[in-house]
Amino acid sequence: MALAATLRETLAAIFPGAMSVDPGECLVYGYDNSRRQALPDAVVFPTAHEQVVALVQACRAARTPLIARGRGTNTTGATVPVAGGVVASFERMNRILRIDAANRYAVVEPGVLNGDLQAALKPFGFFWPPDPTSSAYCSVGGNLACNSAGPRTVKYGAPRENTLGLQAVAGTGEAFRAGYYTSKGATGYDLTRLLIGAEGTLALITQATLKLTPLPAARRVLRATYADIATAAAAVSRIMAQPVTPCALEFLDNAALRLARRHGGDAVPEAGAMLLIEVDGDVDYLPSAVEAVAAAARGEGLVEWRAANDATEVDQLWAARKALSPALRAIAPMKINEDVVVPVSRLPELITGLRAISEKYAIPIVNFGHAGNGNIHVNLLYRPEDPAQAAAAPGCLAAVFDLVLALDGTLSGEHGIGLVKREFLPRALDPVTLELMRRIKAQFDPDGILNPGKLLPD
Amino acid sequence: MALAATLRETLAAIFPGAMSVDPGECLVYGYDNSRRQALPDAVVFPTAHEQVVALVQACRAARTPLIARGRGTNTTGATVPVAGGVVASFERMNRILRIDAANRYAVVEPGVLNGDLQAALKPFGFFWPPDPTSSAYCSVGGNLACNSAGPRTVKYGAPRENTLGLQAVAGTGEAFRAGYYTSKGATGYDLTRLLIGAEGTLALITQATLKLTPLPAARRVLRATYADIATAAAAVSRIMAQPVTPCALEFLDNAALRLARRHGGDAVPEAGAMLLIEVDGDVDYLPSAVEAVAAAARGEGLVEWRAANDATEVDQLWAARKALSPALRAIAPMKINEDVVVPVSRLPELITGLRAISEKYAIPIVNFGHAGNGNIHVNLLYRPEDPAQAAAAPGCLAAVFDLVLALDGTLSGEHGIGLVKREFLPRALDPVTLELMRRIKAQFDPDGILNPGKLLPD
Repeated sequence: MALAATLRETLAAIFPGAMSVDPGECLVYGYDNSRRQALPDAVVFPTAHEQVVALVQACRAARTPLIARGRGTNTTGATVPVAGGVVASFERMNRILRIDAANRYAVVEPGVLNGDLQAALKPFGFFWPPDPTSSAYCSVGGNLACNSAGPRTVKYGAPRENTLGLQAVAGTGEAFRAGYYTSKGATGYDLTRLLIGAEGTLALITQATLKLTPLPAARRVLRATYADIATAAAAVSRIMAQPVTPCALEFLDNAALRLARRHGGDAVPEAGAMLLIEVDGDVDYLPSAVEAVAAAARGEGLVEWRAANDATEVDQLWAARKALSPALRAIAPMKINEDVVVPVSRLPELITGLRAISEKYAIPIVNFGHAGNGNIHVNLLYRPEDPAQAAAAPGCLAAVFDLVLALDGTLSGEHGIGLVKREFLPRALDPVTLELMRRIKAQFDPDGILNPGKLLPD
Repeated sequence: MALAATLRETLAAIFPGAMSVDPGECLVYGYDNSRRQALPDAVVFPTAHEQVVALVQACRAARTPLIARGRGTNTTGATVPVAGGVVASFERMNRILRIDAANRYAVVEPGVLNGDLQAALKPFGFFWPPDPTSSAYCSVGGNLACNSAGPRTVKYGAPRENTLGLQAVAGTGEAFRAGYYTSKGATGYDLTRLLIGAEGTLALITQATLKLTPLPAARRVLRATYADIATAAAAVSRIMAQPVTPCALEFLDNAALRLARRHGGDAVPEAGAMLLIEVDGDVDYLPSAVEAVAAAARGEGLVEWRAANDATEVDQLWAARKALSPALRAIAPMKINEDVVVPVSRLPELITGLRAISEKYAIPIVNFGHAGNGNIHVNLLYRPEDPAQAAAAPGCLAAVFDLVLALDGTLSGEHGIGLVKREFLPRALDPVTLELMRRIKAQFDPDGILNPGKLLPD
């Protein structure tokens, strides 16, 4: 459906030279890394908070859907405009407004790229912990919307643990501030965390005050290979039960390792499973920290433990790990990529259960991910052109989620719910919890214009 | 007003032998550390989640106020039953249900004492970071309700950063779960953090899954004295701008020091101001960490820098610091004890401004607190029996808050709003933010039975 003429005129006035209704251009803003796609009626490019206020008010007056978009790297369809309407791409609202080292915060606009922020913080001796694999080209606003995390979360937390305050515009068209410029606050309800992970369904974030963490002085990259995935999973559990918390504790199963060797070459070992472990901290502290982690890594099934030989090998190991998701996409374009989480001690049961599910449904499953958080990227490599696999895929996915929930886990650790996991939400949340979320949504967005069809099931 | 007969009968059935309407007994549950007081119509002692569900439903049916109470250590009147009704004291619902070291969480009932929890966690090598001064006799449920923190927050965070999930009963009478058993989650809105710090106005927490942190291997206690409070405040700012984060960075001004000497004796120095600093971590790491903090502490105004000589002196320094609040209460029973927060770099302006306010209103002000978070306990030692001071106190307090807000700070870092700061909330929050909070409250508690007259202004 086309945009109402009055809305189109209003938007043109708010966004002179920064709006398009051209279907070819709109198309580019209609898909994300979920490979889902829908055509928006218009795309606008805000550069100022006041424009966003006017935008929401205009869309609300016209009862037209409004979808905030960072860089579309999410995998759940969270920015796909399934009901048409206006996509607000924040790519031009990308300034770092302040880096305040003494107070350990940075004030940024939502469109700043995660990687650009990290580069700007480095000279000050700080970083912002959330570091999705897509950090070079994903936006901080998108990170906040999805509570996106990454390997360092195991030690440093996700956006909810690393954000002090927000400026936003609710679906009512009202602008407001939440949170603080301080590292502590007990002044009313926590609206900051409520907006983080809400996937643009409550409000559009126009500014964020991010909590900064000192850069560690040194880092060591280690790898441990195991005879099989069960013994590797048991080692993860032992590592997390002792006091030294690694700053990354990544897991690759044998299928993922085979694939990783294509990118990392001989730096990536052949094994039943591998843990890629990073320990960081002060130079004096690293040797004993590494020894503590090594002691926990030792045990049944350990084949080899070693430190990366040099910077090149470190880069190769990480490059191989980071190339996994796109590489799997190349093999199986329609793969289902989940990011389930279970308590770390349940990882062996998860991995064993996934193998049984893979066999039962005859769909290959490749597993890797942030094992220190129990957060595993479960990749169902199904081919839709194979009728048997196409028929089996939905049941296979449901079985994965049921397994995860039975292990005290949850549907998503960092990807969010978006479009593709919405129908599964009632399995993870009890009806009262879901209803409370719906009621909260109705307060921020009474007309349901913000990112309709996402996160909460109908 | 007395309890409706039907409600009284219902409560008696829910709480056999665990309920009182005796005014003498009820009186004990009608005050807290704010020295405010009101008489509830009944007090009940839940021991099970199901009782709390029935309790909320009964109070809602009777439109009777219901106030959750931990141990009444809060300073804001948050548990004072200003509108009468039923106080639910959670002191008997105090079991530690599970300590899961491999997954770094503990599941507890709300009535467990903070100190008892820490003692139970110690053999597992973990602790729960929130450690209010009252840790020996405050409850975890109260800590969660108020987002209470303490000295270690500067490094380890407050309850919002250290809680994975909750079980609760909304003011509707509906039970629900929020959050996870995992250290990561992106499955819907963050209701866990919304309940934390809500002061019992949204729901009654009946179970909490707390995130545990490994106990550091070693700790060093240091003290630095300064010629005056301005140079001490500047040192705090320098310490927080460098990478080594102390696990405590406490500030005492000269008036606080004089008082502390009464409790700590000669272990407490005479000086213009003192910083009490703790650095923790691995044994190998401590010397370089201490040197980094020492380098930042050096500068204009530093009089003396030294490590505590032995365990006795450590205990004396901390005992003196922890005795300050009760000691001030003994001097000035009606003192106004605020816990304002400003960005750390604004501490010198805060301290200078507070001195000017103290002189203008002729009310002594003693300052100490968690300087690493910019969280200062500002004690207005006014005597209500002095007509001039009684008349000046409200203006003085308002001036303190205006100063704090002008410095990008906020009203409360860890005490919360409760009864006594409610009227100041509109100074700190914009009208839209406040209205969103009100709308959220109405969804959880449509009849307004939970802790009426607290947190949100009428």
